[in-house]
Amino acid sequence: MTDSMTTRPPGRPRSERAEKAIVDATLELLAEETGVAGVSIEAVATRAGVGKTTIYRRWPNKEALIVGALATAKAPVPPPVGASAREDLLMVARALAAGRRGPHGRCFHSLLGSAEKYPELFARYRQDVIEPRREMMRAALRLGIERGELRPDLDLDVTLAMLIGAFGMPASQEALPPDYPERVVDALLRGIAL
Amino acid sequence: MTDSMTTRPPGRPRSERAEKAIVDATLELLAEETGVAGVSIEAVATRAGVGKTTIYRRWPNKEALIVGALATAKAPVPPPVGASAREDLLMVARALAAGRRGPHGRCFHSLLGSAEKYPELFARYRQDVIEPRREMMRAALRLGIERGELRPDLDLDVTLAMLIGAFGMPASQEALPPDYPERVVDALLRGIAL
Repeated sequence: MTDSMTTRPPGRPRSERAEKAIVDATLELLAEETGVAGVSIEAVATRAGVGKTTIYRRWPNKEALIVGALATAKAPVPPPVGASAREDLLMVARALAAGRRGPHGRCFHSLLGSAEKYPELFARYRQDVIEPRREMMRAALRLGIERGELRPDLDLDVTLAMLIGAFGMPASQEALPPDYPERVVDALLRGIAL
Repeated sequence: MTDSMTTRPPGRPRSERAEKAIVDATLELLAEETGVAGVSIEAVATRAGVGKTTIYRRWPNKEALIVGALATAKAPVPPPVGASAREDLLMVARALAAGRRGPHGRCFHSLLGSAEKYPELFARYRQDVIEPRREMMRAALRLGIERGELRPDLDLDVTLAMLIGAFGMPASQEALPPDYPERVVDALLRGIAL
């Protein structure tokens, strides 16, 4: 908490650059083979080219740093605007498709792979990153129900699992076809029964 | 290829026990933090309490061993029997639910997490483990279409992704409610639009 406190120029370009370097370094380390075990404040500081103090100024510990970096990397899910349920779900689906492309995908598997070993880290990730996104998706579904476009007896949990799961599935490595979000939303809306 | 070739008793209980020990050791190592990198013929032999020769007799290399162990661990997807599309999909969904409970889940995330580092391993896993299962699911869907129960214009890829994805999603740690397979199949069949 010493340097830069007095000499910092107006605005925060330097600390923002440092923050980005720290987040990127954390995600890189997470994506590497040792996953969560390979992330330490020391290793992140070295890779980001910053002092450990600079990291501790913003994140109190390794868990907070990992969850914070993952939260930053996730494409946000926009709130429903309500033109139609289909449009709102399409926005969600497009955000999910965008999320696959970032560095987040591989990190997510690292995290899931060691979730049993770091239950608190995972719980925090769920609370800070997953739940706010799911809540936005539930809002889109509830709005659709209110407006009489979606079934009132809709199974929210299962619907979310199918919608989110559809974007996790065709093995994370592959690029999705550009019309994939639309195909998922339409299949979800219409169902597969004749 | 020396011991046990001449002295083996009738039947194969001993080699089956060895095979099970080898598969279990491979899955345990895979599930540990270093994932694919932590699996070596040497480490598996030590943990399983067998000689390396015993492993090489059955699996020519580490990649074959990992894919073989994962294939063994996966609950099989039964072929459709055709009582109804709903019944066939329910059998698929129950197999997917059962697959979450085994040791396979965590190993799968280890594998996905390092898929970029081991592209051939992942390709082989996809070909030997994922594809045969998907083909069985497609068969259930095609049978449902033929019998006029499912939409003829059904998007097979998206349907599979939603069905499989629904079982990957509610974070792999949690137990699923017992009626979950039924809820997924019914949501999939009926769709969510009013």
